Amino acid sequence: MNLTNHQFRLAARPAGMPDRSSWDYVEEPVPDPGDGEVVVEVMYVSLDPAMRGWMNEGRSYVPPVGIGEVMRAIGVGRVIAARHPKFEEGEHVTGLFGVQEYAAMNADGLTKVDPELAPLPVFLNTLGLPGMTAYFGLFDVGRAQAGETVVVSGAAGAVGATAGQLAKLSGCRAVGIAGGPEKCRLLTGEFGFDAAIDYKADDVPAALREHCPDRVDVYFDNVGGDILDAVLARLARGARVAICGAVSQYNRSVMQGPSNYMSLLVNRASMQGFVVFDYADRYGEAAGEMGRWMAEGKLKSREDVVEGLDTFPETLLRLFKGENTGKLVLKTTAA
Amino acid sequence: MNLTNHQFRLAARPAGMPDRSSWDYVEEPVPDPGDGEVVVEVMYVSLDPAMRGWMNEGRSYVPPVGIGEVMRAIGVGRVIAARHPKFEEGEHVTGLFGVQEYAAMNADGLTKVDPELAPLPVFLNTLGLPGMTAYFGLFDVGRAQAGETVVVSGAAGAVGATAGQLAKLSGCRAVGIAGGPEKCRLLTGEFGFDAAIDYKADDVPAALREHCPDRVDVYFDNVGGDILDAVLARLARGARVAICGAVSQYNRSVMQGPSNYMSLLVNRASMQGFVVFDYADRYGEAAGEMGRWMAEGKLKSREDVVEGLDTFPETLLRLFKGENTGKLVLKTTAA
Repeated sequence: MNLTNHQFRLAARPAGMPDRSSWDYVEEPVPDPGDGEVVVEVMYVSLDPAMRGWMNEGRSYVPPVGIGEVMRAIGVGRVIAARHPKFEEGEHVTGLFGVQEYAAMNADGLTKVDPELAPLPVFLNTLGLPGMTAYFGLFDVGRAQAGETVVVSGAAGAVGATAGQLAKLSGCRAVGIAGGPEKCRLLTGEFGFDAAIDYKADDVPAALREHCPDRVDVYFDNVGGDILDAVLARLARGARVAICGAVSQYNRSVMQGPSNYMSLLVNRASMQGFVVFDYADRYGEAAGEMGRWMAEGKLKSREDVVEGLDTFPETLLRLFKGENTGKLVLKTTAA
Repeated sequence: MNLTNHQFRLAARPAGMPDRSSWDYVEEPVPDPGDGEVVVEVMYVSLDPAMRGWMNEGRSYVPPVGIGEVMRAIGVGRVIAARHPKFEEGEHVTGLFGVQEYAAMNADGLTKVDPELAPLPVFLNTLGLPGMTAYFGLFDVGRAQAGETVVVSGAAGAVGATAGQLAKLSGCRAVGIAGGPEKCRLLTGEFGFDAAIDYKADDVPAALREHCPDRVDVYFDNVGGDILDAVLARLARGARVAICGAVSQYNRSVMQGPSNYMSLLVNRASMQGFVVFDYADRYGEAAGEMGRWMAEGKLKSREDVVEGLDTFPETLLRLFKGENTGKLVLKTTAA
């Protein structure tokens, strides 16, 4: 196709935080599409905490990224060449494009998106997997009911901000935990949480007592660690803890287990893990409902867009340092 | 009543293992029964891991035992004086008598037992709360189904031995974890488990891989700690972990949380705590079914009976040292 592709390939499995040495930045020609394939010009790359897990060896819910392989990532882009009956040049699509400028791939796993419906990065956020994760985690795993108290950690992140807003929209009390005054203002302001706890400044157990007077019915956990322990100590009878992630722990060699887990016994509570892919046949239902709320202005989608594919190694770390507000997205020169 | 009562009262809240200094051994006269009361001569006192938790301050599923109060304990005994329309002298009853020789108490919380049906200590074991705990933990919390693999820790203890047998009786593969060759022989012999893992001698992760080739669908956890972590690493997709207790942790100042809890996410698994009292209105159903299995010789009840109420402080510690096999029961001079 006479085009040059830039890619980030996994060079080594990091111990702790990844850095530049974890990656090879590679240049190679873009191949012509084979039969059934398309070539996508990647416009936005989604950066997600789960990527850290994909860099590790060993069994998980998806296979690890192999050494030398293009780093796995979801993206949004434009079809620039198509040899597939369902796709045409110029259409916008989302799929597992990887951290690169062009993806030449089988088109079966791609989903078309309509740029008239929402800005393209929203399809990596509220109308994408983070939104689906928030929706099914809160309603199916957490079984949140009107009148209950829902606590969300990582609440200024992509999943957390949507989970908290969905909790409010369904009549729950929503309390968010995030780091720093700016994020906390965003939670109670733009996102409409009832209260925000700044884990960097506040005494989290005391703040949970203050803001959750009826204790915690649903805890949507994105962070693990000490915050998980603090919320476990504040569970209500019959509470549900939805384990969505543990971003505070992903760069540690040994995970910190929740030492207050016996609160599950005292409170007849449950802790359940989930993986959003299991709900794939219901994404349409969730996207329809959330799309309506967005159109009515009731559900806000906030993206933290960083320019430059080449900033990937440093930009990814913002997730683990808590530096992003809203969905972290890389914008390429094609966008 | 001209009778002398000996009692163990809580003298101090222990840090770590309780010892003689945790208790006052007190002598006092047995009062006459008041209106609505009975006096019970206690024959067998149930010693349970949960008693360690009752000695701590702070919120749990029942209030702590107060300093100076008779230590809470379930027992079986004989009514020797009654001022209640439903009870007569000579009847056998079970209830919260405490660690003492005589209990003068309101009779409303007492349950009559029939010594013709089973030896009296069995009413503190398979036909008592340990049996109820095993039954509802396995079937309601663990939702064990025929063909699944069930792992039970503390498997030679009162609850564990029954949970494993119930798993076998309902068509599951039952794997027990216990300490020492004698207990392990008992599991695969008398109790009919498919396999036993000796956590003191075996490499538990390796033994779980060997004995649970299809991974673990239900884990009935009585112990917590490293064993909980090892089983979490071996969960099957959709597994259920029933948190019944954590006897390895009760004498520690800080609980060891399960560092492998993210296996819940990878495997879409859940961990749920429960308290047997919540199933009180269904005890009859469970006792009926288990009583039939016992009568048919399919369900074995094993009690570890130690003589002498005065041995209570030392005998209680056998639970935490893993020295009992089957239900630990103190026998008084009245039995």
